[in-house]
Amino acid sequence: MPRLNRIVETALYVDDLGRAAAFYEEKLGLSSMLRTRTLYAYDIGGQNVLLLFQRGASVETQVSEHGSIPPHDGQGPLHICFAVDAAELAAWETQLGQHGVEIEGRMRWNRGGESIYFRDPDGHLLELMTPGNWPNY
Amino acid sequence: MPRLNRIVETALYVDDLGRAAAFYEEKLGLSSMLRTRTLYAYDIGGQNVLLLFQRGASVETQVSEHGSIPPHDGQGPLHICFAVDAAELAAWETQLGQHGVEIEGRMRWNRGGESIYFRDPDGHLLELMTPGNWPNY
Repeated sequence: MPRLNRIVETALYVDDLGRAAAFYEEKLGLSSMLRTRTLYAYDIGGQNVLLLFQRGASVETQVSEHGSIPPHDGQGPLHICFAVDAAELAAWETQLGQHGVEIEGRMRWNRGGESIYFRDPDGHLLELMTPGNWPNY
Repeated sequence: MPRLNRIVETALYVDDLGRAAAFYEEKLGLSSMLRTRTLYAYDIGGQNVLLLFQRGASVETQVSEHGSIPPHDGQGPLHICFAVDAAELAAWETQLGQHGVEIEGRMRWNRGGESIYFRDPDGHLLELMTPGNWPNY
């Protein structure tokens, strides 16, 4: 049986790409790899790609000389979780506090590791987690 | 500035956890790391965690002795992309075909790499991509 090696792309759908970009770039320190009219793509730690799609802009199949991309879109406060070093969690709290980002929840996981939760401008629930909670993390 | 190391968790919201689990386990070969009444978690290549949430089951803050998890939820055919080896893309097509999963789109990326697109039982748009399309993949 063939194998899935990792999740390359994780997508969020946002109402205002400029507003979302300001948050992810200025407050979370991300750098864009690609910017189109309807999609910004960010490198996460050299491992994964965070895609920010303009909500409603991918509801038609996109056909080009290279092939076709079927429709997708999303609503609701989605959830994604980023890995951070345990030694950097305090620095992240300071960073977020300095940028006026409120910590909305905290967890100290049974299996190990800690998490803090906050929102992006579209209400998506973002989590920063230190290692220990998952068999693979 | 502290650093985000990777995306640990990517979440999809599904109408029927059992139906979704059958798809991800039998057709994509994933193994669950955690199963609760409202959440199944899958290891992806030892690198990432795919979370399948029962839609509507996480709309209240979850408080426990360990802390609190704020609300989240999602609608719509979301998109995620899995990494596969170039040498295994043909085997994936065979695997999906044998399980009656229709290939809905294909791309041959300008920068390198190829993708195939298909749907899970909730209509989420899944992609299998071979390396070359992103600076970090």
